[in-house]
Amino acid sequence: MSGGLFITVEGGEGAGKTTLIAALQERFRQDRGKDVIVTREPGGIPIAEAIRAVLLDRAHTRMDGRTEALLYAAARRQHLVEKIIPALRRGEIVICDRFVDSSLAYQGHARGVGIREVWEINRFATEDCMPHLTLLLDIEPQQGLSRISADGGREVNRLDVESLAFHRKVREGYRIVADMFPQRIVTLDASLSPERVAEEAWRHILNKFGLNIG
Amino acid sequence: MSGGLFITVEGGEGAGKTTLIAALQERFRQDRGKDVIVTREPGGIPIAEAIRAVLLDRAHTRMDGRTEALLYAAARRQHLVEKIIPALRRGEIVICDRFVDSSLAYQGHARGVGIREVWEINRFATEDCMPHLTLLLDIEPQQGLSRISADGGREVNRLDVESLAFHRKVREGYRIVADMFPQRIVTLDASLSPERVAEEAWRHILNKFGLNIG
Repeated sequence: MSGGLFITVEGGEGAGKTTLIAALQERFRQDRGKDVIVTREPGGIPIAEAIRAVLLDRAHTRMDGRTEALLYAAARRQHLVEKIIPALRRGEIVICDRFVDSSLAYQGHARGVGIREVWEINRFATEDCMPHLTLLLDIEPQQGLSRISADGGREVNRLDVESLAFHRKVREGYRIVADMFPQRIVTLDASLSPERVAEEAWRHILNKFGLNIG
Repeated sequence: MSGGLFITVEGGEGAGKTTLIAALQERFRQDRGKDVIVTREPGGIPIAEAIRAVLLDRAHTRMDGRTEALLYAAARRQHLVEKIIPALRRGEIVICDRFVDSSLAYQGHARGVGIREVWEINRFATEDCMPHLTLLLDIEPQQGLSRISADGGREVNRLDVESLAFHRKVREGYRIVADMFPQRIVTLDASLSPERVAEEAWRHILNKFGLNIG
């Protein structure tokens, strides 16, 4: 990874990932004079966009959990090799909205495929190019989902219409994953105000990388 | 797998897989009064068809080898759970044109991803639902490719236009895979006439399943 910093932001629907990432981008610029590359899968990579279209097609309601996990891993791989790794090699700071941990929580735990099994195919996909720091936004699913329905600007996709029970399993999955990777994953209370969440996140970033940025 | 028979046919481009499968289907019907389900990925399964379209799009020439392996595994998974496993549970005989071994030879060996690594993601995809018998059609690539160009009826896709060196690696990969799974894979000399290849294949099928069919 030679020089760059790789940060991911994780959490359930409506946890505030987009808001946090925008705040961190601003903070890097103002406090450290650093530009940050913000991305999310499929990240404008044509192959990954085409895979994403297969995943989000509402006609595909009978998709098997393992098929889904393999497709996310495929889109992740292409986005990683075409966009994230080249940026890290140039020494950039990359913040990615969702990464491996989403697959572990959603397909691995909530869909019941198995966290260990999904972790193995994601190791294949990433060749162990993992984030230096992951900020996990933890929130009660009902609170998160109510934020989405209040935000009329964003289209609801196949994953949003899952039941509340599913989203509770996702949250549980994220907590298991956070215990698996305590060195990498920091859990933040996303029920707090966006300002306080961003403040906490920034403190963790400085703790981890303080000497390397700016 | 309870009752059904699962046979796959493997080999490089122009090795004669389609011809052999048609001959075997006829043989099962005439000699044993048995109907056979013939399939190939994506097998008419809409999700797998959509994945296949991503794989074969000629615009996607920069596709990473691991992305490709994950996409084939995803299409395989969906085809397996929607079509092959239900047929085997009904006690049917299923012949599939290409399966896991294609990924091991093409992405694992010829593209250099690693046979062991590709095997692991395919174990995830298949949950060890593997063929009872695999017929590997072995042929010198130049001879195989000359058959394709002589057959004007079939459209040439992204994989056909690879170099001869690539197809030699594929053949080498298949041979390594045959050595890995000697109980399952039988190698046939595909430079012989279609009739002799079919005769050999039928002999192996009777050896393996003689008491169970008809």
